[in-house]
Amino acid sequence: MADVRPPLSTADSNATGTGVTTGPISGSRKVHREVGGLRVPARRIELSNGEHLDVYDTSGPYTDDTATIDVHKGLPETRAGWSAEHRTQLAWAKAGVITREMEFVAAREDLPAELVRDEIARGRAVLPANRCHPESEPMIIGKKFLVKVNANIGNSAVTSSVEEEVEKMVWAARWGADTIMDLSTGKRIHETRERILRNSPVPVGTVPIYQALEKVNGDPARLTWEIYRDTVIEQCEQGVDYMTVHAGVLLRYVPLTAQRVTGIVSRGGSIMAAWCLAHHRESFLYTHFSELCEILRDYDVTFSLGDGLRPGSIADANDRAQFAELETLGELTRIAREHDVQVMIEGPGHVPMHKIAENVRLEEELCDEAPFYTLGPLTTDIAPAYDHITSGIGAAMIAQAGTAMLCYVTPKEHLGLPDRDDVKTGVITYKIAAHAGDLAKGHPRAQEWDDALSKARFEFRWTDQFHLALDPDTAKAYHDQTLPAEPAKTAHFCSMCGPKFCSMKITQDVRDYAEKHGLTSVEAIEEGMREKSEEFTGSGGEVYLPIVN
Amino acid sequence: MADVRPPLSTADSNATGTGVTTGPISGSRKVHREVGGLRVPARRIELSNGEHLDVYDTSGPYTDDTATIDVHKGLPETRAGWSAEHRTQLAWAKAGVITREMEFVAAREDLPAELVRDEIARGRAVLPANRCHPESEPMIIGKKFLVKVNANIGNSAVTSSVEEEVEKMVWAARWGADTIMDLSTGKRIHETRERILRNSPVPVGTVPIYQALEKVNGDPARLTWEIYRDTVIEQCEQGVDYMTVHAGVLLRYVPLTAQRVTGIVSRGGSIMAAWCLAHHRESFLYTHFSELCEILRDYDVTFSLGDGLRPGSIADANDRAQFAELETLGELTRIAREHDVQVMIEGPGHVPMHKIAENVRLEEELCDEAPFYTLGPLTTDIAPAYDHITSGIGAAMIAQAGTAMLCYVTPKEHLGLPDRDDVKTGVITYKIAAHAGDLAKGHPRAQEWDDALSKARFEFRWTDQFHLALDPDTAKAYHDQTLPAEPAKTAHFCSMCGPKFCSMKITQDVRDYAEKHGLTSVEAIEEGMREKSEEFTGSGGEVYLPIVN
Repeated sequence: MADVRPPLSTADSNATGTGVTTGPISGSRKVHREVGGLRVPARRIELSNGEHLDVYDTSGPYTDDTATIDVHKGLPETRAGWSAEHRTQLAWAKAGVITREMEFVAAREDLPAELVRDEIARGRAVLPANRCHPESEPMIIGKKFLVKVNANIGNSAVTSSVEEEVEKMVWAARWGADTIMDLSTGKRIHETRERILRNSPVPVGTVPIYQALEKVNGDPARLTWEIYRDTVIEQCEQGVDYMTVHAGVLLRYVPLTAQRVTGIVSRGGSIMAAWCLAHHRESFLYTHFSELCEILRDYDVTFSLGDGLRPGSIADANDRAQFAELETLGELTRIAREHDVQVMIEGPGHVPMHKIAENVRLEEELCDEAPFYTLGPLTTDIAPAYDHITSGIGAAMIAQAGTAMLCYVTPKEHLGLPDRDDVKTGVITYKIAAHAGDLAKGHPRAQEWDDALSKARFEFRWTDQFHLALDPDTAKAYHDQTLPAEPAKTAHFCSMCGPKFCSMKITQDVRDYAEKHGLTSVEAIEEGMREKSEEFTGSGGEVYLPIVN
Repeated sequence: MADVRPPLSTADSNATGTGVTTGPISGSRKVHREVGGLRVPARRIELSNGEHLDVYDTSGPYTDDTATIDVHKGLPETRAGWSAEHRTQLAWAKAGVITREMEFVAAREDLPAELVRDEIARGRAVLPANRCHPESEPMIIGKKFLVKVNANIGNSAVTSSVEEEVEKMVWAARWGADTIMDLSTGKRIHETRERILRNSPVPVGTVPIYQALEKVNGDPARLTWEIYRDTVIEQCEQGVDYMTVHAGVLLRYVPLTAQRVTGIVSRGGSIMAAWCLAHHRESFLYTHFSELCEILRDYDVTFSLGDGLRPGSIADANDRAQFAELETLGELTRIAREHDVQVMIEGPGHVPMHKIAENVRLEEELCDEAPFYTLGPLTTDIAPAYDHITSGIGAAMIAQAGTAMLCYVTPKEHLGLPDRDDVKTGVITYKIAAHAGDLAKGHPRAQEWDDALSKARFEFRWTDQFHLALDPDTAKAYHDQTLPAEPAKTAHFCSMCGPKFCSMKITQDVRDYAEKHGLTSVEAIEEGMREKSEEFTGSGGEVYLPIVN
């Protein structure tokens, strides 16, 4: 049972001189399955008992030992030439056509391609894949599929550089981010995005109003449809896969936020509210929405309809402003679909546990089951520095209720911009929430991973436990803190209980006993116990008697 | 609005030479309310706007600047002489008597003393207070009260010292642990417990079978009722407030675990299972249960009926072994109550989200609503090193469903013994879960804390935000990482968005607008909007027209 393999690479730094993190995750290697001419990636976790577990892999070529990485050249254009005709995935799906992108995600999720097509055609799933981002590996967002995780990155006027942001993208994808959003608002906004897109194996989302606002020196009132439109086109051309558009912030909803504890907490929402007030009219996002649809359709960019009026505190959860906007997002969803543009809907925010399910129910009802994409939600306001946890709780619950993608929250939420460690903590926390959601929804393959890890735990295959962990390096490091010696990696105990107190060791005796007495099925156990019971009762034994003390 | 007070003490180390951490939490000070001759403690968070928030305080005299701490002498005997007659809280409650302990917890929770008495009398709440632990500050565990958190500490044969364990107790209580359990299994087990008890302001729990097993050199088969009984009496005399007793592990249940992925994972459960198999009879815990009740009654020690067959993996959740044992725990609950001994019931373990509520429902049904005390549960097995999070999700959900006390899980779970940092992370994570539960259950005062913090956030009172955080030091440290300068503590923006993109700043404009137009109530807003609508429609304005693009 001993793990005799040499440890695999744990290259967690820029050892290769590429400027980004490369090399496989400890104990894993990249494999590709050939499916209908497509090379579908997976992460293979090799186990010491000769078995292996293949898990969904978001990390792209960076974890492939055979790949050559050059961030100045960018990734290979995987999807180049996959489709001769420019139609959206939604248009193809409605026409009954299974695209190569759909085949790819079906193979990736181990589900029928027809299910993929059908869910997209109904609008219940989206496949965000701008034709100008051929470097991306197709993925799907919808409640019938694995719950996905988005990681926000991006610099601000105050901090961070282009290089750091590219590395954050690679780093986030390494640990399991299914998409990333570039929320940069500072200098070099175009260049940062370009470098991210050319190197991103996962779909990239943005909030175009941020860049538009930079163009008018930060004065919301000076924003115009033309400036916004040109910004959107610029970003579509670069290859942005989905865009947050706060078109649901209507003038009449704005005063509904006046009584709130925390008012409007969405940056985009507050910008649009300010514009509406300054001009006393509906925003250009709303009045030009159909034109916007036509632009997005040309590139197959997916709408992420933003919840500009999401609650920013427990006190403001599920209020009239929030749900009024949601109704408008439903109206916009139907318009976008008529234009064959894919749509997902953004959700809160800060919501106490007992109000979470209502968000999903209403979103599905009002927005015709468009995939829900939520930020957390945070289930309490009292723990800044731990908001990955306050929100991880809400994220798991809202995933269980049907949310298709979770936007991560890092420990720095409300306090500062996340660094590399925060990004990892945020992604791992949200992978936990997503996976807990998959288990709770009964995803057919989700529990394999839990079972593999628990089996390794029960059999004292310590190294396999580490390799099967979402974060192998930290799991091993924690174990090494109290029992660093190499023999401890095969020991049949750990530092928690010591050798004498190991419940799992004692359990082995129980197994041996059951085996010896033929009690290897529930039926056999019951039958055997019935016999024993009669035998003991007859013989005056103490077994099964009531308490005799 | 600037915070001009000098920063309060942040004494997080042993600066006073007491060997334990003393001094108030940053931004707080200890206050006492005089209620009927009792001094009821609270932690007062002072705010820069002249307001303050008093929160429940578990930390004891260690955070009181006016207290003298001497760990060799122990804490003052707060409860000495409170009761002349030796009866249990349950006996008094059944007799209609409100004890001083009940008055104390009623004041502490800001709830009627009669409710406290009634819940105890029904067995739906417990007040664990061994008459030999007069140093403790009374607290209550029950679904109608604030959700409580337990922190496990204790050394093992492999690691840790007495001094470290005493400091871990003080440290855990500092951050909010409502009780601690000393799970020591190594050397100096009696001395460690003595030092913890004499210095603990919170109730202390143990698992006596661990010490009993040490007495027979770790061979479960050699355990006897007499050895166990003497161990229990020794611990009762020391002042242990509640004891985990795995009396529900019946012989016939043991084979039910043979088909499990992880067998028996409870240390106590595996010890008792091994004993049952070795002797082929029911355990002495079960057969001598009434005698055990008489001992516990003499000291008013509370039973924590252990779930020796709890699931140790997702695969084993809610199985027959688990629920068969739960039924027996219900039987034992009724016997204990007849002896006027208080009872709580321990619960899992590893449970996927969709199976959590069923645990609470069954526990309440089978155990006559005895307070449920659960370990997590972990909602997935795949994240060792993050099991405070996998379990924090389950803990919050099971608290919402009615669990009265949550046993914390630290990041070291499954990997090693927790150190000081792990204890803090575990406690803070579980305070989040408990508070999220309080909010979801609609505890009348829970949301005050969230509202105070969110109000501070909206008003850019940064220092107040830190002080209102469950962990002020870490919140401030994270903020300082990107904006360390002191002026940033009063800045109307943060590093996330920078000065131009602050949604909260823009929201202020919205407020001013609403104020100016008299839109300060929902009714006024609706009326105003109706007028505006008519006005604009009449004038051909664009407001409220359908999308016109």
